[in-house]
Amino acid sequence: VAAIRNNNHIGMLALYAEKVAENGQVLIALTTSEALVHPWGGRTAMIGTNPIAIGVPAKPRPYVFDMATSLVSMGQVHDYANRGQALEPGWALDADGEPTTDAAAARKGAIAPFGGAKGYALGLSIEVLVAALTASAIGRDVVGTLDSSQPCNKGDVFIVLEPAENVAVAITDYLHALRASPPASVARPVTVPGDRAHATRERNIANGIEVASDVWNAICALAESPTFKGQMQ
Amino acid sequence: VAAIRNNNHIGMLALYAEKVAENGQVLIALTTSEALVHPWGGRTAMIGTNPIAIGVPAKPRPYVFDMATSLVSMGQVHDYANRGQALEPGWALDADGEPTTDAAAARKGAIAPFGGAKGYALGLSIEVLVAALTASAIGRDVVGTLDSSQPCNKGDVFIVLEPAENVAVAITDYLHALRASPPASVARPVTVPGDRAHATRERNIANGIEVASDVWNAICALAESPTFKGQMQ
Repeated sequence: VAAIRNNNHIGMLALYAEKVAENGQVLIALTTSEALVHPWGGRTAMIGTNPIAIGVPAKPRPYVFDMATSLVSMGQVHDYANRGQALEPGWALDADGEPTTDAAAARKGAIAPFGGAKGYALGLSIEVLVAALTASAIGRDVVGTLDSSQPCNKGDVFIVLEPAENVAVAITDYLHALRASPPASVARPVTVPGDRAHATRERNIANGIEVASDVWNAICALAESPTFKGQMQ
Repeated sequence: VAAIRNNNHIGMLALYAEKVAENGQVLIALTTSEALVHPWGGRTAMIGTNPIAIGVPAKPRPYVFDMATSLVSMGQVHDYANRGQALEPGWALDADGEPTTDAAAARKGAIAPFGGAKGYALGLSIEVLVAALTASAIGRDVVGTLDSSQPCNKGDVFIVLEPAENVAVAITDYLHALRASPPASVARPVTVPGDRAHATRERNIANGIEVASDVWNAICALAESPTFKGQMQ
């Protein structure tokens, strides 16, 4: 068990889950973020997007589950704002705690927990659990991952466990049975976590990744900026 | 870490979480059940209701989170059937995989995962994780907890961890701040997991518990049955 305090954003948890599971072990990873999510029945951002990841050995590739406990990520909200797209109803509140579909307004407000009261309870439990194990900051006191002016004070918990012997075959068979089970709509077969990410990775390796022009221009401007060049020296 | 195989239904996980947290430690409990939940976008019961519980020390009482990863429990479906009440749309499928609000039909079908694709992914991850750690049965191979004719073969995982020092105050303050945060509706203050269960317990201790007459009659008949009397001897 690794309980890490005062850490920065650690990127996509799936990557860690995949590596651990490829190595034949099981990973449970829990992490926090700055408060971006409102409580179920609340108006204010009080909870991190608090992702959970689980990696388990399977064939031909590990079982990899990685999700934020928010309905969408703040990254998606920024992406929608950069593209000038409206959010779906129910995704976010504005700075006054009122529902909004304006992505720019949502950046100053709060995003919804996934799955109503249950998803709220899960995200909050990760917030409380990580704080208890790492003594990192909690709730609105978490700072530093969205700017470069404050020291980061968030926490992460990684639990790596040895699986029982000879379980990968049963798990692999089970995942195949799930994918082969009758779908609600014949056009959309049942998938398991990681399937879409795997397909996206394959496609992106072949075709490249589309980046919004605002983001690309901001990256190019940053690369040329004196601040960035100073930090890289 | 305790990885338990071939276990029966272990009741409400909240009770374990509460005891561990009252003892000053943190609990993560994961368990499985017979396949009662359909995959997101599927038609057949393939996954257990797979509850997760987290207990963390706090004042005046521990933080206790305990939820099934199904939208409702099969116990609720049975309760609705016993009371002759209709289910809410979206809760369940019948034996043919078609949506139903008939509680009796749902008992032979499948209940929905909570929180759409994300809740499905979480419940499935618990199924896979528990199987990996316990080498217990998985998916539709889990039997024995809903009858007395087959040996139980489900698994449970309990992870007990020592929290960092002096974190209970920060967690308690945070939970108070959540409850005091602006609600979406003034009539419904923000609550945290365990608040409703705590209030229900207090009320039930004062007033007793309402039991559907069908259930009460079945209990009385069972108490008088030769099978039961034989097992109790």
